[in-house]
Amino acid sequence: MSIVVQKYGGTSVADIERIKYVAQRVTRAYDQGHDVVVILSAMAGVTDHLIDMASQASQDPDRRELDVLLATGEQTTSALLAMMLKSMQYPAASLMGYQADVVTDCEFGNARIIEIGGGRIKELLQKRNIVVVAGFQGCDIRGNITTLGRGGSDTSAVAIAAALKADVCEIYTDVDGIYTADPNICSKARKLKEISYDEMLNMASLGAKVLQIRSVGFAKKFNIPVHVRSSFSDEEGTMVISEDSGMEQLVVSGVTHDKNQARITLKKVPDQPGIAAKIFSPIAEAGIVVDMIIQNTRAEGQTDLTFTVPTGDYAKALALEKRIAEEIGSEDVFGDENIAKVSVIGVGMKNHSGVASIMFTTLARENINIAMISTSEIRISCIVEEKYAELAVRVLHSAFGLDAE
Amino acid sequence: MSIVVQKYGGTSVADIERIKYVAQRVTRAYDQGHDVVVILSAMAGVTDHLIDMASQASQDPDRRELDVLLATGEQTTSALLAMMLKSMQYPAASLMGYQADVVTDCEFGNARIIEIGGGRIKELLQKRNIVVVAGFQGCDIRGNITTLGRGGSDTSAVAIAAALKADVCEIYTDVDGIYTADPNICSKARKLKEISYDEMLNMASLGAKVLQIRSVGFAKKFNIPVHVRSSFSDEEGTMVISEDSGMEQLVVSGVTHDKNQARITLKKVPDQPGIAAKIFSPIAEAGIVVDMIIQNTRAEGQTDLTFTVPTGDYAKALALEKRIAEEIGSEDVFGDENIAKVSVIGVGMKNHSGVASIMFTTLARENINIAMISTSEIRISCIVEEKYAELAVRVLHSAFGLDAE
Repeated sequence: MSIVVQKYGGTSVADIERIKYVAQRVTRAYDQGHDVVVILSAMAGVTDHLIDMASQASQDPDRRELDVLLATGEQTTSALLAMMLKSMQYPAASLMGYQADVVTDCEFGNARIIEIGGGRIKELLQKRNIVVVAGFQGCDIRGNITTLGRGGSDTSAVAIAAALKADVCEIYTDVDGIYTADPNICSKARKLKEISYDEMLNMASLGAKVLQIRSVGFAKKFNIPVHVRSSFSDEEGTMVISEDSGMEQLVVSGVTHDKNQARITLKKVPDQPGIAAKIFSPIAEAGIVVDMIIQNTRAEGQTDLTFTVPTGDYAKALALEKRIAEEIGSEDVFGDENIAKVSVIGVGMKNHSGVASIMFTTLARENINIAMISTSEIRISCIVEEKYAELAVRVLHSAFGLDAE
Repeated sequence: MSIVVQKYGGTSVADIERIKYVAQRVTRAYDQGHDVVVILSAMAGVTDHLIDMASQASQDPDRRELDVLLATGEQTTSALLAMMLKSMQYPAASLMGYQADVVTDCEFGNARIIEIGGGRIKELLQKRNIVVVAGFQGCDIRGNITTLGRGGSDTSAVAIAAALKADVCEIYTDVDGIYTADPNICSKARKLKEISYDEMLNMASLGAKVLQIRSVGFAKKFNIPVHVRSSFSDEEGTMVISEDSGMEQLVVSGVTHDKNQARITLKKVPDQPGIAAKIFSPIAEAGIVVDMIIQNTRAEGQTDLTFTVPTGDYAKALALEKRIAEEIGSEDVFGDENIAKVSVIGVGMKNHSGVASIMFTTLARENINIAMISTSEIRISCIVEEKYAELAVRVLHSAFGLDAE
């Protein structure tokens, strides 16, 4: 008998009928003899509806109170599933974040889990209950309701799985697994049987929005196998596991693209200590996340500096940098919104040379110019013109032998 | 500086605009220097919507889980009001039942308050916060969410007022006070300036549905003045206070009627010990509340026994009694749904004789036959034909000098 944690996303609990379907799947695992803990999201659309309501109440809703409001979404689905299970004659109980001892910091709206007691969950499991835990929510040490940010239910699930030393954390979603590329733009993309935590971390941050990235970090830290699968079929999905677990290590496991990127260049920046801080501190203070930073050497004690930000923050960042450029004596500031980041990811890269070379040659063959390059141990990313993003993904997918038969 | 507890019902928080209006009223009291605690109901209609959702999830929704679901209603309005107050630059915080230490028994759906810690509320008040507490909900000693039954927010408000030793508990509702009779049927009904707890207890149970009866019991026990008033005007409403507080003691303060009554008579019941238990135990076990019971003496060791039940339980009760009548050898069972209970209530009755006489004479003058009579220290109730209910209220209202000028 093993402990199985199942997490169902918003589309899987979108209405009463869907929740009934979830109840059937949950009881099937229970009937197989597993201890089952279920983590639920709010019904699809409900969180947005609540945020809309809050914005009618206040132009800038207080974050503590917004969390109190948002937490009702998962409370609703959890209560509904638990009452359904009970009417099917299964012992079940719902627990809110605070009841399940999901203790977080005080960062309302984007809280981080500090620890999960899990005592109440374990006690209920010992009595062979199905335990339904409201995802996305926790409480701080003072008992205030907190929420974990968009996709936070994934993190709830993995963290609870870790606290219970669960055998597997199943993430039921509206896709059937992790693909080698976005099937919408690459028809030859195929589902991966396995992927490592590190690859998934790179996938998630690069735009494959299947799992909240924080949940993958948790899974890696506590070595919890995460099974990403569809709530609409019985097919096996993709296992996210440790690369030490004997998994097949592909040189490249996936090709991702992210069009939500914009580039800003400061030309002829004086090459002095402290300049980078002057350029990036105001951006950080404005809450803008900088992704890639490239600094080119130039003659005469000057340098060109280029970085990328999310498209939504482009205008704000550009305005900030124009002010800064004047202060530090940079010659010019210009930017480009029509860019995309294309990346190849694979743990096998660590032991294979030539991946970068294949990537650059493949893009060159299609006359796709590379504007910026950044690399990590298991990833190579190139900034290209936005209009080439799809083509780049397809040709790289073929070049690295990922195409489905 | 005094502590003021304000409770707003469902129609007062029916939408964002109404809640804004509540925010203005709350801040006015705060600006006057009071410590303000606000208790909120769910938006009008929301609780019914949630119950409907539950009935789609389960034919017989588990009571624990139903409470988890229902508690979201008050959670929503409390968060919205608190964020509104904060955006108006007032320090404010919402507290759910468990956060405000509203400890109840485990009777899900109809829990009773055992104690209210109030520590967190007091702490927030000391920092001059406006404290918004979700009404209707509490938690049992295990931390399970409980609800207090229909109208439970009134009880939340009065109990919290008692715990804080508040100076007044203001109940804002969609009527502007307690009337001497239902203004819909008695045009000469007028608003009472004051009413005693005991009179209110009798009013509430007899159909004047302004306050949850349990809240009045709490108010009496802890001697909390309750001000029932309209959330749509600034007019003074009705103070519910102790009759020892020097209030004017009217002989009759009000005339009420209740059409939700049905009568069942068992004819020629053997007059033996234990017979009443045989007749009423099955009714109680079926969860049916018996109101009046009248037993007439008859000759030959036999008696006629008549009692009233709510109309909704009439068919069930009649069926039960037909079975019982056969068992105990009663000659016949018959009933009547077309009855109404008309009552006159007043603490002054204790010191005045002749109230019953005036009541009977007045009804007789209109040819209204009295089918049953029951009395208490401060109340006389008569069962009459339903069609005479309105007429009875009007003539009694005049006879006891209650008519408005």
